[in-house]
Amino acid sequence: MKYFAFFLFVLLFAVDTKPTEAVCGYESCPETKPNFVNIHLVPHSHDDAGWLKTVDQYFYGHKNNIQHAGVQYIIDTVVSELIKDPKRRFIQVETSFFAKWWKQQSETVKQVVKKLVNEGRLEFTNGAWSMNDEAAVNYHSVIDQFTVGLKFLDETFGACARPRVGWQIDPFGHSREQASLYAQMGYDGEFFSRMDHKDKARRMEDLSLEMIWDASESLSDAKLFTGLLYSSYWETSGFCFDVLCRDDPIIDGDSYDNNVQTRVDDFIAYAAKVAAKFRTTHIMIPLGGDFQYEDAHINYKNMDKLIKYVNARQANGSHYNIFYSTPGCYLNSVHKGLQSYPNKTQDFFPYASDSNSFWTGYYTSRPTQKRFERDGNHMLQTAKQLSVFADLKSEQQKEDLDYLRQIMGVMQNHAAITGTEKQAVSNDYDRLLYDAIIGAARNAQDALRVLTNLPDGEFESCLQLNISECAFTQDSADNVVVTLFNPLAHTTSQYVRVPVKEENYQVTDEKGRLVASEVVPVAWQVLALRFRKNTTQHELVFKASVNKIASYHIKKVVRRKGNAIFRPKRLKKVVTNNDEESETVLQTSLIKLVIDNNSGLLKTVEMNGLVEDIEQNFGVYNTKGSCLYSFREDEPMSVLSNDVKLAVYDGDLVKEVHQEFNEWISQVIRIYKGVNRVEFEWLIGPIPQTNPKEVITVFDSGISSEGTFYTDSNGRETIKRERDKREDFTPDLENQPTSANYYPVTSRIYLQDNRKRMVLLNDRSQGGTSMNDGELELMLHRSVLSTNEVQSVADLFDSDLDQGRIAHGKLFLILNALAKKNTVVERLSEKEIHLPFWKFFSSYSKVNRNAAAKPLPDFNLLPKSVHLLTLEPFTDDEVLLRVENFLDHIEGNVVSFNIRQIFDGLGGVEIRETTLDGNMPLSEMKRFKFHAEGSGAVSTEAEFYTAAHKALSADSSMEASEFSVTLNPMQIRTFIIRKK
Amino acid sequence: MKYFAFFLFVLLFAVDTKPTEAVCGYESCPETKPNFVNIHLVPHSHDDAGWLKTVDQYFYGHKNNIQHAGVQYIIDTVVSELIKDPKRRFIQVETSFFAKWWKQQSETVKQVVKKLVNEGRLEFTNGAWSMNDEAAVNYHSVIDQFTVGLKFLDETFGACARPRVGWQIDPFGHSREQASLYAQMGYDGEFFSRMDHKDKARRMEDLSLEMIWDASESLSDAKLFTGLLYSSYWETSGFCFDVLCRDDPIIDGDSYDNNVQTRVDDFIAYAAKVAAKFRTTHIMIPLGGDFQYEDAHINYKNMDKLIKYVNARQANGSHYNIFYSTPGCYLNSVHKGLQSYPNKTQDFFPYASDSNSFWTGYYTSRPTQKRFERDGNHMLQTAKQLSVFADLKSEQQKEDLDYLRQIMGVMQNHAAITGTEKQAVSNDYDRLLYDAIIGAARNAQDALRVLTNLPDGEFESCLQLNISECAFTQDSADNVVVTLFNPLAHTTSQYVRVPVKEENYQVTDEKGRLVASEVVPVAWQVLALRFRKNTTQHELVFKASVNKIASYHIKKVVRRKGNAIFRPKRLKKVVTNNDEESETVLQTSLIKLVIDNNSGLLKTVEMNGLVEDIEQNFGVYNTKGSCLYSFREDEPMSVLSNDVKLAVYDGDLVKEVHQEFNEWISQVIRIYKGVNRVEFEWLIGPIPQTNPKEVITVFDSGISSEGTFYTDSNGRETIKRERDKREDFTPDLENQPTSANYYPVTSRIYLQDNRKRMVLLNDRSQGGTSMNDGELELMLHRSVLSTNEVQSVADLFDSDLDQGRIAHGKLFLILNALAKKNTVVERLSEKEIHLPFWKFFSSYSKVNRNAAAKPLPDFNLLPKSVHLLTLEPFTDDEVLLRVENFLDHIEGNVVSFNIRQIFDGLGGVEIRETTLDGNMPLSEMKRFKFHAEGSGAVSTEAEFYTAAHKALSADSSMEASEFSVTLNPMQIRTFIIRKK
Repeated sequence: MKYFAFFLFVLLFAVDTKPTEAVCGYESCPETKPNFVNIHLVPHSHDDAGWLKTVDQYFYGHKNNIQHAGVQYIIDTVVSELIKDPKRRFIQVETSFFAKWWKQQSETVKQVVKKLVNEGRLEFTNGAWSMNDEAAVNYHSVIDQFTVGLKFLDETFGACARPRVGWQIDPFGHSREQASLYAQMGYDGEFFSRMDHKDKARRMEDLSLEMIWDASESLSDAKLFTGLLYSSYWETSGFCFDVLCRDDPIIDGDSYDNNVQTRVDDFIAYAAKVAAKFRTTHIMIPLGGDFQYEDAHINYKNMDKLIKYVNARQANGSHYNIFYSTPGCYLNSVHKGLQSYPNKTQDFFPYASDSNSFWTGYYTSRPTQKRFERDGNHMLQTAKQLSVFADLKSEQQKEDLDYLRQIMGVMQNHAAITGTEKQAVSNDYDRLLYDAIIGAARNAQDALRVLTNLPDGEFESCLQLNISECAFTQDSADNVVVTLFNPLAHTTSQYVRVPVKEENYQVTDEKGRLVASEVVPVAWQVLALRFRKNTTQHELVFKASVNKIASYHIKKVVRRKGNAIFRPKRLKKVVTNNDEESETVLQTSLIKLVIDNNSGLLKTVEMNGLVEDIEQNFGVYNTKGSCLYSFREDEPMSVLSNDVKLAVYDGDLVKEVHQEFNEWISQVIRIYKGVNRVEFEWLIGPIPQTNPKEVITVFDSGISSEGTFYTDSNGRETIKRERDKREDFTPDLENQPTSANYYPVTSRIYLQDNRKRMVLLNDRSQGGTSMNDGELELMLHRSVLSTNEVQSVADLFDSDLDQGRIAHGKLFLILNALAKKNTVVERLSEKEIHLPFWKFFSSYSKVNRNAAAKPLPDFNLLPKSVHLLTLEPFTDDEVLLRVENFLDHIEGNVVSFNIRQIFDGLGGVEIRETTLDGNMPLSEMKRFKFHAEGSGAVSTEAEFYTAAHKALSADSSMEASEFSVTLNPMQIRTFIIRKK
Repeated sequence: MKYFAFFLFVLLFAVDTKPTEAVCGYESCPETKPNFVNIHLVPHSHDDAGWLKTVDQYFYGHKNNIQHAGVQYIIDTVVSELIKDPKRRFIQVETSFFAKWWKQQSETVKQVVKKLVNEGRLEFTNGAWSMNDEAAVNYHSVIDQFTVGLKFLDETFGACARPRVGWQIDPFGHSREQASLYAQMGYDGEFFSRMDHKDKARRMEDLSLEMIWDASESLSDAKLFTGLLYSSYWETSGFCFDVLCRDDPIIDGDSYDNNVQTRVDDFIAYAAKVAAKFRTTHIMIPLGGDFQYEDAHINYKNMDKLIKYVNARQANGSHYNIFYSTPGCYLNSVHKGLQSYPNKTQDFFPYASDSNSFWTGYYTSRPTQKRFERDGNHMLQTAKQLSVFADLKSEQQKEDLDYLRQIMGVMQNHAAITGTEKQAVSNDYDRLLYDAIIGAARNAQDALRVLTNLPDGEFESCLQLNISECAFTQDSADNVVVTLFNPLAHTTSQYVRVPVKEENYQVTDEKGRLVASEVVPVAWQVLALRFRKNTTQHELVFKASVNKIASYHIKKVVRRKGNAIFRPKRLKKVVTNNDEESETVLQTSLIKLVIDNNSGLLKTVEMNGLVEDIEQNFGVYNTKGSCLYSFREDEPMSVLSNDVKLAVYDGDLVKEVHQEFNEWISQVIRIYKGVNRVEFEWLIGPIPQTNPKEVITVFDSGISSEGTFYTDSNGRETIKRERDKREDFTPDLENQPTSANYYPVTSRIYLQDNRKRMVLLNDRSQGGTSMNDGELELMLHRSVLSTNEVQSVADLFDSDLDQGRIAHGKLFLILNALAKKNTVVERLSEKEIHLPFWKFFSSYSKVNRNAAAKPLPDFNLLPKSVHLLTLEPFTDDEVLLRVENFLDHIEGNVVSFNIRQIFDGLGGVEIRETTLDGNMPLSEMKRFKFHAEGSGAVSTEAEFYTAAHKALSADSSMEASEFSVTLNPMQIRTFIIRKK
């Protein structure tokens, strides 16, 4: 390919007669014509980071028998086509694919692409590592994956590559938090193409397809221009020129088939239809679709002709003006249009594509994968922080950390965390994430060796603790040290569970002090046991208190009668079922649970000074119409029979009720001494394949919630839901009354009356609702037919969906008095659930010596409502620090603190504040401001937002007071600290 | 696209540091390695000029719902890819598509392509206008379509573009004449990929996939290297990288899916299998297929990798060496290999792809289209000659003539004349050919106005004379002049038939002399009449004698009793059927026919001093398994019932028996006064659709043919066929005994014993055989299910096949004594059938004056066995003249004659002899000579053929004797005459 390189080299320098000067961004936008309908033609390709094929299969065009798609060729041929004409444009959306491609290019090709980027011809749009889902993702991982994508672009191309608009054209519903994050990253707007069909129909009529989304109740500037595409992103009315399509090309030659007249007629008729639905004289027509532009030549050859012949009509009085453009350039034109737009305050869930298809199944689909993704984030934050503390810098270490960052970016893809991918792809995601976690775990290991000054320590991570397996504790648990890492800012106490073979262990802390511990049996239901090949049938439980790092020594002890060695308490197994007259009571100083011995179900919860009858049960929807995307209720939900087998383990530290509902559903209800929440550890599966089912858990209380309940938005702000209602339209409830009321629950769902609130926190995303007052429902597991919402791809899904998989997880119940500040405990619990201690295991023999551990910066000085959202290596001599006030304007207050000590602790010499993603100095942020309807007269000049506060910028020579940080409710601030 | 132009411009001159010097042809071939298996990787695309889609649909990529194919993109992207690396190669085969593409290119792109051609990177292969069929084509049209294709290449690119090898990879069987023509055009060899499966299997074993084809029994140098591709042309064992394919790409990146090892293993294993079947150390692996390379980038990117990684193994001792190459370069290497090869003397018909699939149906499929193509040639030769005589030179005239040349080229395509195209495509061929004939007819009209000096003459052509329709004679036949043009060299007498409304006409010649004429009724069967909306129910018959041009005046006369005006004889209608005891006898001085009045069938033929009982009947094969390609016999053939309705018209000039066999089959048996052949005018259709049928005519005689019969090869040399036998292998006769004995009959089929021969001449190509001694069978019409031989495209064929169409045509029977020279009458008849007088009609009022006609050169001086094969404008001041000795070495002798008079008559100043196609001076022809097995020791040096005689090259200043021409039996010589 040397010749090719030379050829591009020649091109590059031959074309550039004057010194290169980047004219990108809005300055590079095509000229438009006043008094014309300006048609912004946007060539784009929608390249899923995994769906029917794996990421690499998509990239390389492998397994085209499954789906014809090869991203390498898309970028190759698009670049070739862009070179040919400076008017041509293309938007690159998925940075993961672009980065993979970039890595394989010669220096000369890279130079050419840089030129294209610098001239706005190749415009990065959205720019995150993948096009993330918006229902099942946690904001933490969304921020991370934008950081990764935008950082790649910034490091590779500089400011010209910075995306201006969000482009979430495929996700199946849209969250308010996503819009809020866009605003915090300085985006000027976002576009998408899926919306409830009734909402869209109304907006078509009202010319309200474009709106101003007030994306936060707490943050004042989180307002984002949001546009719905006129049509589905892949559908432009017969004008798909792609090699994958069958629409007629433009035939302008001397041919019997010459069709210029009719093709231009049809296109202008389409444009007229579009133009009638928008407020300015600009319309955007995207030309592209799934994996299009693999043979970009075809697309551009025909689009060139389309542009030529549409504009040629201007000579005959046509007022249509068409040109290559980008969503950014379209938005720029719209911004200059000085129109006002309707307001939007809630979100776009659930998405109904028709009256029978509510895409709510994917909130829960593939629950094990949804959980594994959380493990990935857990490891990622652990490894990031440890890498900063230990200053890991080897190429391998950087590569390993980057790899997990990237794979976590992939996992946010709208066909990954959603569980809507093909089974083989799901398996590949597992492989990728597993490998990436292993790599990052190596970094954590390296870091701990440095930080503990114990270079022989194994610091092994056990990735199967969720099923109480750990080779390390199984094989050498007689004398093990577990080192706990706390990713949170503040010192916390948590109960730690370690799978062990036997029953006799003692636990000591770093100072050799005995720590109270108990052994409980692992509760695996009959069917599940078949799939579990393990001999560790117990878990050792003890409470640990950790600032950042702490180690505990677990030692097997001989069970000798009467000797001095501590003898763990063997829990008494009390079978209480069939004992009709009695109740079972579990009680700590904080909580009292009453179990109905007759039904075997939870009956009453007492905590926080409140008593409430809460019955918890499991239910199933028998379904034929559901798929990985949508939950379609064929019959009403039926709860399981009230014949639950019980076993109770009543210890000092932990009290557990083991419930067996049937062969494939069981649960442990658990309370810990000193912990103010009730834990429900459910175990479901394999769901019998003969009769597809969706399994829910339901908590029924007497709280008068009056049709109202609340769910989080991507784990951050809360959105109020009213049963059977939407903000902007009347939903179609006739066919799917339940599914129509399902919402994504990423971290919590609750309901309340004027006295009490019942809160459920979960450990992964799930769909949930409240179909009756006082009742909360969460979907935990699903077994669906192998069909797909999208008819045409139905047969591409194979039948071996892993519905047979056993899912296992936890819910946490908090019953609380309704008082503003009471939610703090919920928020703190959320953080602990999301980022608990990470456990590292070493042989006692390897770490059995006193070593002077490296001192770490102390984050305890941060106010309690401040979360250490991110601490990670940014460049070789820079660290990214992100702090968040995790209480909203109702729950919390403005907090101020000084980060000089942390800055010094990290060895900082300079600090600068950036947009949320870390890649743009906050002082440079200047976002489009649009005028909301009903907020006074429209300005006569285009308006902008800048940062609401002065960006922090300081160095170590400055006064400590210069390091003061104020956080409004829900505010996140991002800093880059340069180190010595 | 100005920018693109500039970009290529820069490229062109930047890369060319030294002055351009063409190194093309064999000199540009890649280096090979001794002691290696040299793998010639040949990128190619097989682009049908119509098949499932029309020519323009294929070119533009229109109607991709029918088949994904767009030739414009193929050439666009291939050129883009070739530019990138001088090692890359591509062969362009179909010149029709290339020429259409070329016309749309900018000057700069053209310069780039010239460079690619001049460096052998884009190599034209085959180079004819289309890839012609070899069964149903007449050699006349094959020569023409090669002339058109090669002329375009020569005029556009010069000698570097001249193809070296034939590339007939798709046609369904291969003719010896095609090989002979290749040799006469100076080709070094030909390659194809379809051969009877048993023949191929044997050749695989014998290493005789490559052979020396002794392609003429009369011409000594017509020996051609012929190679069968190892595999089907579109099948290379999992290595199709095309955008249309699904094979795995080569994944060489840092990927879990990296497959370099296995892909290279697999490829080398495949190459080893191929290498084992060939005689030299070179193998050819074509990579391509139907309409591949639409996204050439994908192909080249992966082929680059394949080459890289296969050759990389050489470092570890691999002896496989792979590089981009062409069939020409492969053949060049083989030629240097100095091997000997087996001989081949017959042809490759019929083609059986398996034991149940003999592709013999297409010899007859779409009989009306096959006939219309002959009309096209008829008009083409007429217009060519007239254009030369009248020296037509306007742009419009040249364009019109070129258009018919080109469309006739398209009609030779192996999915056109074969009738194997989709119905809509067949309709489009009709449209194209009709338009082209109309254009050429305009030229003929213009020429006649000049040549007759009658500028007001209409000289209208009637294109529906085959169904006895002509608007001109119907509407104004009261006073019409018919001007006859004779395309043959010699003055001939033929009976002329003109459809007329009434019954009373007189005919006079140019000198006003009365010409004997008769009126006969048109014999249209009941069903057929439904489809014929016409009031001309008679044909006026008279005998005309024409050198090149002659006119006859037809005038309606009043039928007045006893007056002086000539009163045409009304033929007596004699119904003889059901008259059990009698025979009907039709007799002229040359022929006596006896019809059995009981059966209504022909019974005895007496002519040329012989009497033979010959029964003629129609038969049908009821079939379910047949398709447009193959004829599959489900049940034995059944002859029609012997209950034929008869009507006899016994005139002085013409005697006719009208036979009606059933509602949809009828026939006229006809003899003319002074004409020594019996005419059978059959009329078949619409074939009832309920029961698919193939309709044959069968002539049963008492001649002891002993399993042997003879068919022509593309209308030229005769090939002996032995029932149930093949030259090189034992055919599989079990399933399809009849179809396995079917052969293409382009112009004649005959059988003989030691005394008599029975010859059938036809008016279009048909399939035929002799299943019983003394019996000849020809398939005339077919109604088949809409399925296709190729399973995968079966559903692409729509159901509205025009089987309902009525076919109508003529056969000519000659019963002759077995004597060498007696065949001359057959040969002469063939020429008259192929190129009869063309009829032009004018109103008498417009041409009713004496005008001095322009004198024309006289071709009567040519010996009787010499055919004026071609006389056509070549360039503005050049004329192409082609003369053929149409008798073979058994039938005729060497003839000599002098063409000075013709040269002068054409206004010649210089003459040069060329290869058969007219584009290469014969003196420059130098063809590869290969060593045939068993013909002595292999030479130690590569050998070549040059022209067997000294090329004629003269000018008007030279002695007349210098213009002497000698023609061996079957020899064709081609001259370019430069005019004043």
